[in-house]
This record gives sequence, C-alpha cells and structure tokens, in this order.
Amino acid sequence: MATMSKLKWGMIGGGEGSQIGPAHRLGALADGHFAFAAGALDHRPDVGREYGQRLGLDADRSYGDWTEMLSGEKAREDRIDLVTVATPNATHFEITKAFLEAGFNVLCEKPMTMTVEEGEEIVKVAEKSGKICAVNYCYSAYPMVRQARAMVRNGELGKVRLVVTNFSHGHHGDATDADNPRVRWRYDPAMAGVSGQFADCGIHALHMASFICDDEVKTLSADFASTIPSRELEDDAMVNFRMEGGTVGRLWTSSVAIGRQHGFDIQVFGETGGLRWASEQPNQLIYTPVGGRTQVIEKGEGGLYEDAQRLSRVAIAHPEGFPLAVANIYCDLADAIRGENRDGLPNAAAGVRSMAAVHTAVESAKDGGAWLDARPSIFR
Amino acid sequence: MATMSKLKWGMIGGGEGSQIGPAHRLGALADGHFAFAAGALDHRPDVGREYGQRLGLDADRSYGDWTEMLSGEKAREDRIDLVTVATPNATHFEITKAFLEAGFNVLCEKPMTMTVEEGEEIVKVAEKSGKICAVNYCYSAYPMVRQARAMVRNGELGKVRLVVTNFSHGHHGDATDADNPRVRWRYDPAMAGVSGQFADCGIHALHMASFICDDEVKTLSADFASTIPSRELEDDAMVNFRMEGGTVGRLWTSSVAIGRQHGFDIQVFGETGGLRWASEQPNQLIYTPVGGRTQVIEKGEGGLYEDAQRLSRVAIAHPEGFPLAVANIYCDLADAIRGENRDGLPNAAAGVRSMAAVHTAVESAKDGGAWLDARPSIFR
Amino acid sequence: MATMSKLKWGMIGGGEGSQIGPAHRLGALADGHFAFAAGALDHRPDVGREYGQRLGLDADRSYGDWTEMLSGEKAREDRIDLVTVATPNATHFEITKAFLEAGFNVLCEKPMTMTVEEGEEIVKVAEKSGKICAVNYCYSAYPMVRQARAMVRNGELGKVRLVVTNFSHGHHGDATDADNPRVRWRYDPAMAGVSGQFADCGIHALHMASFICDDEVKTLSADFASTIPSRELEDDAMVNFRMEGGTVGRLWTSSVAIGRQHGFDIQVFGETGGLRWASEQPNQLIYTPVGGRTQVIEKGEGGLYEDAQRLSRVAIAHPEGFPLAVANIYCDLADAIRGENRDGLPNAAAGVRSMAAVHTAVESAKDGGAWLDARPSIFR
Amino acid sequence: MATMSKLKWGMIGGGEGSQIGPAHRLGALADGHFAFAAGALDHRPDVGREYGQRLGLDADRSYGDWTEMLSGEKAREDRIDLVTVATPNATHFEITKAFLEAGFNVLCEKPMTMTVEEGEEIVKVAEKSGKICAVNYCYSAYPMVRQARAMVRNGELGKVRLVVTNFSHGHHGDATDADNPRVRWRYDPAMAGVSGQFADCGIHALHMASFICDDEVKTLSADFASTIPSRELEDDAMVNFRMEGGTVGRLWTSSVAIGRQHGFDIQVFGETGGLRWASEQPNQLIYTPVGGRTQVIEKGEGGLYEDAQRLSRVAIAHPEGFPLAVANIYCDLADAIRGENRDGLPNAAAGVRSMAAVHTAVESAKDGGAWLDARPSIFR
Repeated sequence: MATMSKLKWGMIGGGEGSQIGPAHRLGALADGHFAFAAGALDHRPDVGREYGQRLGLDADRSYGDWTEMLSGEKAREDRIDLVTVATPNATHFEITKAFLEAGFNVLCEKPMTMTVEEGEEIVKVAEKSGKICAVNYCYSAYPMVRQARAMVRNGELGKVRLVVTNFSHGHHGDATDADNPRVRWRYDPAMAGVSGQFADCGIHALHMASFICDDEVKTLSADFASTIPSRELEDDAMVNFRMEGGTVGRLWTSSVAIGRQHGFDIQVFGETGGLRWASEQPNQLIYTPVGGRTQVIEKGEGGLYEDAQRLSRVAIAHPEGFPLAVANIYCDLADAIRGENRDGLPNAAAGVRSMAAVHTAVESAKDGGAWLDARPSIFR
Repeated sequence: MATMSKLKWGMIGGGEGSQIGPAHRLGALADGHFAFAAGALDHRPDVGREYGQRLGLDADRSYGDWTEMLSGEKAREDRIDLVTVATPNATHFEITKAFLEAGFNVLCEKPMTMTVEEGEEIVKVAEKSGKICAVNYCYSAYPMVRQARAMVRNGELGKVRLVVTNFSHGHHGDATDADNPRVRWRYDPAMAGVSGQFADCGIHALHMASFICDDEVKTLSADFASTIPSRELEDDAMVNFRMEGGTVGRLWTSSVAIGRQHGFDIQVFGETGGLRWASEQPNQLIYTPVGGRTQVIEKGEGGLYEDAQRLSRVAIAHPEGFPLAVANIYCDLADAIRGENRDGLPNAAAGVRSMAAVHTAVESAKDGGAWLDARPSIFR
Repeated sequence: MATMSKLKWGMIGGGEGSQIGPAHRLGALADGHFAFAAGALDHRPDVGREYGQRLGLDADRSYGDWTEMLSGEKAREDRIDLVTVATPNATHFEITKAFLEAGFNVLCEKPMTMTVEEGEEIVKVAEKSGKICAVNYCYSAYPMVRQARAMVRNGELGKVRLVVTNFSHGHHGDATDADNPRVRWRYDPAMAGVSGQFADCGIHALHMASFICDDEVKTLSADFASTIPSRELEDDAMVNFRMEGGTVGRLWTSSVAIGRQHGFDIQVFGETGGLRWASEQPNQLIYTPVGGRTQVIEKGEGGLYEDAQRLSRVAIAHPEGFPLAVANIYCDLADAIRGENRDGLPNAAAGVRSMAAVHTAVESAKDGGAWLDARPSIFR
Repeated sequence: MATMSKLKWGMIGGGEGSQIGPAHRLGALADGHFAFAAGALDHRPDVGREYGQRLGLDADRSYGDWTEMLSGEKAREDRIDLVTVATPNATHFEITKAFLEAGFNVLCEKPMTMTVEEGEEIVKVAEKSGKICAVNYCYSAYPMVRQARAMVRNGELGKVRLVVTNFSHGHHGDATDADNPRVRWRYDPAMAGVSGQFADCGIHALHMASFICDDEVKTLSADFASTIPSRELEDDAMVNFRMEGGTVGRLWTSSVAIGRQHGFDIQVFGETGGLRWASEQPNQLIYTPVGGRTQVIEKGEGGLYEDAQRLSRVAIAHPEGFPLAVANIYCDLADAIRGENRDGLPNAAAGVRSMAAVHTAVESAKDGGAWLDARPSIFR
C-alpha cells in the first residue's frame, strides 16, 4: 500500500465479462498505487459508460470510446497518470500512439502492434514524447524472474551460453473443438495475423529469454507445424536463435501438447551455473553452480536482489501468483511515473522486437528454416 | 471487480511497516468489493491518524484508537459494513466483542481469543447480534481447498476414515537465533500464552482438517516437545484426534523442521478415494479414486464445484497465491454481507473450537498423551 | 562383479511363483559375489527339489526341507557360506536359530521372530556362534540412506533433534476387497500376530529412523486404528517415540492411504541442518543447512561417503531401485563374510528391537497412548 | 529367475575397472537366463584371460582376443548362445559382422557402426544369417517405455501428432575441465567421429521417439553449437524432424546444461491424449486424455500391457532402475533366442537408422538447417 497520494489510472477495453478487465483492475489497485479514475470500457458506448459508473467512475470520466476519453482527459487538470490499452489487438497501435502523442503514459497489452513498421513508429513516438510506453509482458515481473535477471547481470552464471524455453499447452489439442470460435480465430490469418501459437504464447517465452539474459535476439531459424490440418496458422513451433552476445537459444511452443496446462519454463546455462524457472511454480528458482549441487532459491529468502525483494508481498514460501505478477507491472509503473529507474519494465523496444521476431519466424519457416536477421531495422 | 456499489471497510491495526496491514488491504480491495473508509491503524494515536490519511482515509475517519473508531462509526449514517481486527492477539477478544455488540460485522485475525471462555462468549455475542463474526483462517479460502471440501460433502470420497495434516517449517530451527525477540516471544508463555507452535501454525492445520472433512474434532491426544531446550513452550507437536463422525486424525506441526519452508499439507482418505493438497502448490488437488489412478485436479478446469470456480480469477494453471486466498475471504464476506449464503467462511464457532483444541492439547501433552475431550463446553 | 572366487549361497523358501524368491536370487547373484549352491525352496519337498534343480542346483543340494538342508550342508566340506531364510514369518525363529547354532551365516527376512523373547534368544545365539545374523531391512541399503547415516555420524546435522517418518500406502483401502485372503490375513491375529500395519510396514520406518540417526528407540506412545471396522488389527497407526539420545520421533504408517503407492519417507532434523529421503525417489537426498538453501545430493556425485559410493553401480542420475537395494545387502554380506567391517548390515539386535517396539506399541495403543519403555530387556 | 536351463553367454570387452562390464554382467545374470560362459575381456590378452578366470570362466573359454574367441566358440558343441560386443566404438562393426556371419546372436553396444554404409552391411548380414543382431538402446526396455509404446500401438493416443524429447545434462559444462581426456575425446573428430553430443546422447532420444511412436524418422533439420569454443564437435544440438507417418518431432540434446543430471525425457502428443516419461523417474508414465485430467500410470498397477508387466520384477512403486533396464534387454534376448517374438528388441535396422540420422544432422547443421532425408538408402 503506497503511502503517497494515489496516481490516477484509466483503462480502455476490459468491459463486463472480459477476463482482462478484472486482471488489470486487480493489478492496478491491489497495492494502492493507483485510483481508478477514467475508462472507456466497451466498444458499445452506452454499455461502457454504464459499466464504468457501476465500477465507481465519475459519470464524466466514464467515456463512450477512446477518442472521447482522449479529448476528455487532455482537457482536465487532473488528467490520468496512466492509461491501459486492453482492446482487440488490431487497435493497439492507433490508441497507444494517440495517447503517447497527447502526453500520457501507456501500458499496452501485447502485441503492441500488428506490423514491425507500426512498432518502429511507436518506439519513435514514445521517445519523442518522453512518456512511458510499457508492454504487458507480465511474466517478467514475477519476483524470481527478476532474481534470475539480476543473477545474470551480476555475473553469477558467467557468460550465458545457452537459453532454452518452452511455452506449451494442450488447450487447443482437441480437433473436435477446433471450430469453436474461441479457438478457431487464433489460427485464422484474417483474425490473428501472420502467426498463431508463436505470436500468442511463444513470444512471451522469447521476451523472457531476452529479459533474463539481458541480451537481444539477432538471428533465428523456425520450424512451424499445423498439427491439426484444418489450421492455416501454426499450432506448434520450434525456433532456434542466436543473441547479439552469441548465446544459443531454443524455443518450443505448442497448443496441442495435451497434458501441459501452462507449460512455460525457461532454463539458462552459463559458464559457471544454470538456472531454471517455471511459471507453474513461480516462487522458486532452481540454481546449480558448475560442479556443485542444485539449490532451491525461494522467493522471500534473505539476500535476494532488490527487484526480487521489492516485488514480493508475503513471507517465504507463501505463494504469489499470476495476478500479482500483473500487479508488479503496475508497481513498477507507479514508481517509474514518480521518477524511479524501473528498467525491468518491458518497453516499446521490447514490443517491436517481438513483432520482428514473429514476422521473421514466419518467413524462416516458409523458407525451410533459413537463418534470418530477426531485428527490427531500427535496431540493426 | 464488483459491479454493485462498494461496501465500506475499516481496519484496526495493520500500521505502517506491518506485514498484516498490506495483506488485508490487498485482500479487501483487490476485487473491488470494498472501499477503505475508516481505520485505527497504530497503537500510537497520532501515528495511526497520519498514516490512515496518507492511505486515503478522510481525516475524521482516521482514528486514534479503536474506542474512538467504535464511537465515531456508530454515530454515522454511512458507517462501515465490516471491520477487520488485526491487533495483537491479547486484544482480539475485547475489540471483536465490542464491535459485534455495536452491530458491526467483524473479521478477526486468529486467534480469536486467548481463552476458551472468551471464545464461548464471542459465539454468544455474535449469535445475539445477528452479525457476521469471521476468523481469518484464510488457507480455507484457496479454491482447491473449497473443491476438496465440496468433494467430501458430495460423497466423492465416501465416508472419511482418516485425515493427516502437517504444518511444519524450519524457520525457528536455528538455536543461535533463538533469542532474537522476533522468534523468542512465540515460546514465552508470558507473551504467547499456553502454546507455541501448535497455537501458531498447528491450529491452521486442525481447522483445515475440520473444514475439509466437514466435521469437528471430538477428542485428542498430544505429544509436545521443546527441541531447543531454552524454550518453555513447544516447538514441535504431534496431535492425534478423533472427529465426531469417527474419522481418525493425525497432525504434525514443527518450527524446527529445517528445509521445510512452509510445509502445510493435508491428506484426506475415505472409503472410495484419497485427496492431497499442499499450500506450496495450492492450485492443484491430487485425487485418487480407490482402485484407480492418481489424477491432478487443476484450478480452473471444467466441472469444479461452485466455490472453487467462484474464488478463482485467472485461467487454468495460472497460479493464484496466498494474498488472493485472503482476498477470497473478503469476497465471501462481501457476498455474505449482501445476503448470500457463504458457509465456507470460518466463523466464531471455528474460533472457539481452535482455542479449545489448543488448551486441550497442552493439557494432554502434560498428562503423557492422555485422550481428552477437545470440545468447548457449549459444543459438547 | 567380484573378482574373488564366489561365495556359496543357499536359500530356504522362495519357491516357484513367490515374489521373494526371485528378489533374493537377483540380490545374491546380481553382483557376482555369490553362487547359488543349495536350497529348500518349497514346503512341499518334491516340488522344492524339482524346482531347485531347474534353477541349476545340484540334485544333492536341492533339499526337501530345511532340516534336511541343515544336515546336508553341515556334512559337506564345501558347505554354503550364507543361508537366506525367506519362509513364513512364524518359522523364522526356529530356522535362524538352528543354522546359527550349526555355524552358518544367516540372512533372515523380517520379522526375525514373533516374540521379543525369541528375538533375545537369537541375539544370544548369534553372539555365541560368532556368525553373522542379518535381518533384511533392505531399505537401509540404498546408497543415499547410507549417505544420510554417514552425514549424521559425521556431525553434518549437529545433534539430531527430530526424526519424522511415514510408511503409508493405500493398497488395503478397498473395503470391498478386505476379505481377499491375500489382504485379510494381515489383520487377523491368528495369522499376523499382535500387529497389522505397524508390524508389516511401520517397522521398516522405525528401523530406518534408528539406522540414520545412529541411535535407538527408548520409549514410545502409540495410537492404532482399524479404519475398516471388520479388521481386528490396526490398518493405521501413529507412534511417537524418544530415542536414547533424546531425539523426538514421529512415525505414521497406514495401509488405507488411498493414492499413496509406497509412501515411505523420512526426514531428519538436527541443530545445523535437515535431510529428506523418499523411497519412491531413492537416488536423491534432500539436504538443507540451517540458514541456507535446500540442496539435492545425487547418488553418484563426487564426495559422497564411502558406503554411498560403494553401493552404487552406475553413473549419477541413472536410477537404481529396490532390487539393487536388496543386492546391496548381499554385497555387504559378502564383504562381511570375507572379514570387512560392514556395520551398516542390520543385525539381530535390530531384529529384536523391532519386535520389542511392535509389542510395546500394541500395549501402548491399548492403554490410551501411555508412554512405555520400548526396549528389549537385554538392552535396558 | 528362469526355470529352463540357462543360455550360455559371452562378452567381448568390459574388462576390469570398466563400468560397462559390470553393467552387462549384472544385466545378463540378474534374472538367471544366462550363464557366463566365455569372454575376451581386455585388449591386453593376458590381462583379459586372467580376469575372465577370476570371474569364473573356464580357462579355455577366457580368451585373449575376439578372433581367438570366435574360432574357439565356433569349434565347440556347447558354443555360446549370445555374445555381447562392448569394445571401443570403432571396432563394433568388424566384430559384430564376424560373429553374425559365424552364426552367433549378437548384442552390440551403441553405436552399432561408425558409418551408414557399415550399418547397412550389418543389416544385410544379420538378415542373411537369420541370427539376432540387437543394439543396446536399453532405455527402451524400461517397463513404462514399453507401456507407452503399447498405448500408442493400441491407438490410445489416436494418431500421433508430435513428439518432443530431450537428453540434456551438464556434466561437460565446466570449461576448466574441457581438456580432461575423459571429456575431450567426445568433441574431437579424430576420436568421436562426425558428431559429439548428438551421437553420444541425442541418438538415444531419437531412437526412443521412433520406438514409442512406432514410426521412423524421414527428414530432419539440425542446429548444432559448440558452446565451449575450443570444441570442434557440438556440445548442444536441436534437431527438428518429420516421421514417415507425418509426426512432427523436436529433439534437444546438450552436455552443457548445468544442473540437469540426466535429463532424458520424452513427450508424445496425439489426437486423443498425451504421454510423458522421464528417465530420472522411470517407473511412472504421465498420461492425459484429451479433455481429461492428468493421470499417473504406475509400474506394477493392474491392467498394464504385457511388455510392461513382464519386464517388472517388484510390486507397484518399488522403483526399478537403469541396471535392470539393461537386464530387460537380456530378458528379451533370452526369450527371442528361445523363439518368442520380442519385437521390442532394438535391432540392426535401428542401429543403421541412428547412424544415418547422425550423419544427416551433421550435414544439415553445416548447411544452415537444411531439411534433408535422414533415412539410410536401404530404407528409402
């Protein structure tokens, strides 16, 4: 619970019945950093206005759509300090750009944009605006992920040789359910874009690899498969990559891995040690020094790095889960808005790098696994 | 996020720097059911008043002590709907009683009282008041604990024969740290009362056994040990018990089990199946039907019982942890205040039964493990 | 594979179709220490003689019964070096005694005897004979159990405060199968003696506690239950105990713990660390130094104690299982016969202490959990 | 323990101090199917002869080298029924071929040959001879691996879409130990051939994928890395593949994955379910039916397929480990020699397919991950 006066927060999207709305509201409000001050919560203006007021917004700040909200908030002295963009993917670019240009800090859901070009534009707009543009790669805000990154940064693994990550589940593995609209759209280019499972889940794993290794993907080679034949986009992918610093990367993602519920894990192997973290047991980090015994590092134990300590709320071995990882993004945002250095926040550069990786992987997979440069042109 | 207007919530205790204050505020506010409206947060009136205002309380509802808060809130039309009592243990009885008598709903931290007699009085006062008196046995609000209870209630295990539970950690296992005041008081009768580890942790396990089995402890036999000799109260205890319905119970609790971080688990064995739940992996329930294979029941899977569904926020295999178990207590409280039947809420009866079990175990341990009636006299 | 000439080995019991016969033959022969030289394998003389010859015994050493084998072997120059007694429980005493008195080394299946008095007699006979009398507490021969004992002996845990062990399965949890003769006899005093599950499985756990702690049980208090009402003997038991050196002990054993397949584990907590070993993952030992991180000690890693190294055959992380734990007993027997000090071998003293614990626990459970001296009179 | 007269077994290689010698002797002798009858155990004739006699071989069957053993055994009426070839890799081809041509059954250590051409020749020689030529892919003889294969064969997973397997350890991850001769040779083409880690460990995983899926690798694309720069051959590899039936395959193998002790696991995903098996917990198979809960299939439970039952020795949840997986190969060999159909035995075709996969992966990795036909020409 913050002891300074609360920051004002607004949200676009996340209407009644969505899962993403409650997740962001819990995240923003859990630790008392933000007050919910404005919103345009539904694509149906009246529905959104009414719902916002039920959630406690003042009538004049429960807007009918994002353009109305943009002009309304711009005109106020007590304008919101942060806006969360949780609308359908194809609208992220336009809304994020407009709010940044108007001088608002933005948290954008992933994917930040649909194309690399749009992403590059956001990077430039954000830079020019001097405002925060964060992307919700919320897994990176788990305390023990931050611990992992700090260990790498502090040289505890030596030079990182190899990173291996998986994000594989089986929830789209039932072919008899493949026409279910809730599932089908993800494999339909008209709705999902150029990539299915890699863009949906794999990209979290790729971000995590860069995040923990504190390095960026340089080249990649991909193998995509549609194991359910009716699918146009891939439901299983393997991506090999190399990072700028030479680290070898391996990433497997699947949505047909029946029995894996949420199999997101990452292993990092360096000259002097190895690490393992898994999202289904997020409060432990498994560490092995070269030549030594495997150890369990527990969230809350003594001597953790600052980020890992700061983003944990309860004592050792009391688990904290996914909703509070989202809340940790908001903790960092509150601090950053107040002027702290929170370089753990995934930014627009991370957003465009992901988009470039998706497009490059699609191209590589079509070209028999050719090794291609995966960087946005602005980062080459 | 609730869509009705928010309930008003107040808190006594939980001042700046405490761990319990943020935990309750997160719990109460995370899902949008409550607005933080009043508080008496510190035993130093000025400090508490100032801190409350920093947390956003109006000046006239940031009180100097609980008596001031009681009279202040009683006098208001818009009085709080719920007060949380998170003060030192010895004060729980007095405050809880006073607020119940004044017609407030109360959530009391455990232990509800220090003696059985006080506990019996709270039961009577609560009954007479018609108000809710809940006790914060928050582990019972994990979704998969609710699933376990529902499975037992619906006969999925048949008659329950046996329940085995442990709550053992090693955080007080360092004799060189035994004089640390943060540790020592727990083993000092002047401060902790009649029991150390059993009253501190074991009682959560005993409540859990009753809660899942939907039955009550009738008799018990205890073996206590102070494995660090300087301790007057036990740091390790084994309690065998029998429930009203004949179920055999076994409970081990320890604070010197070096290597166990938070080893709270429970196993329930019935005529037609067995269950296992562990607080370090709270989102899974392990189930074995007699003669069949062991299965993993996942939070968020299809077909769970209503309580387990309702108290989960995110999709299958996205972990939810301890702070949201506390939040679940508040979800149930909000619903109960609004008139829903939420019989999963631990109540004053649970509070006094725990106290009776503690006092009976102490007596049994002194008497060489004699089997004694563990029920408060009002429930015999 | 030994490189000295093989020792000669004989077996009583373990006829065709038994599980125990192949287990002992594999154990004795796996590492090449013994040659199978004599046997009386079946209670039906002709059947046993024929089966022994099929297994490769010479006709004159495939005996009809144990008395014939005793006189036959006594008369030979090339008499067997070791005899294994794997007959029904009630006959162990008589056969073991006779072979010891005739100057043979004996490996007796557990229980060594049915009464404490018989057990005490075996201790005396063994001592007088100067021969080895081992009892097949084979779990104690897992490499990582030996590592645990060596760590305790070498003070790596400091003084041991607490030992907690479970041996609980659910294979007798189906009441509809309770009359199955294969199950029923275990709970029938006419066939099983004074105790059911505690004598059958619990006693392995009690032996393990003494073995690893390098100490002996002094007093105990027991709680027995027949959770399936038709059973005369207990199918679930809790035994609290104190060791000679003051260590507190807790032992739970059950045969109705549905879902536990073979839940034999042990935790040892000392002043400066804790250990955990489980029979379902026998190749790892979990160790936590006080104030430090939990570590995994792997069979085959560098720096293990001599016993743990010697009794492992394959490289790190290649699992070795139960049959080779039995084989390890035979490795130690071969070495001991050849004059090595193999004090890890469970001996007649261990056998009679177990029997005394069983009888004491039965008495204590009948007497409401009274604390009783659990030592055989010769060890008081 | 077999009840028929024993088969006669001989061994080439596996001299004193080797690890492979005791492993094969235990495997061959554990279950009583074979008697150790002949051997040429050391490349130093006198040493081998002497050692063989110490192990109990008759002087005239403890040979100085394999050519002497070949002519000696050919000349005998009571010639050996099976010879195991456990010599250095480069000699496997010559010895295996010679014994097959002379009419002996052979168990050859992996790799069966160094080149694909040699492998194809062995296939032809074996076929012509009518004798058994088995290759020691012993992981495939674990009971629960056999269960997995039987489940696939019986359609329990539907059509297999995807197989994902890893064989990764960190035992060569210490760069300061890279010049240790015991490690270095594996990455030196002069000694190891064309491939390092993939040929050493990855090939077990590739065989396992084919074995369980009951299908063969058709094409592959590889990415190799030498993460320790001084290494000429790869210490980390990713191989994507497609099977004849269309199954997508993914295989990661590494020797620098610090913290993984022996990380060999496999996941198989089909239309109607998924399976997971791991060599460090070999006695369980994890199974999830589509839309259902994850289940644990235990070695020894009722209703397993015949192969899984037959190759298990002790009751449910008593672990059996690696040495007995080798013994299972010998069980199958004994049965096959006696005329049973034991099609689980890895044969010469499996041996040459592995070799073709190694050479193809090397070529693909050099060619930027090009997709290449991985089949030996005789199987195209």
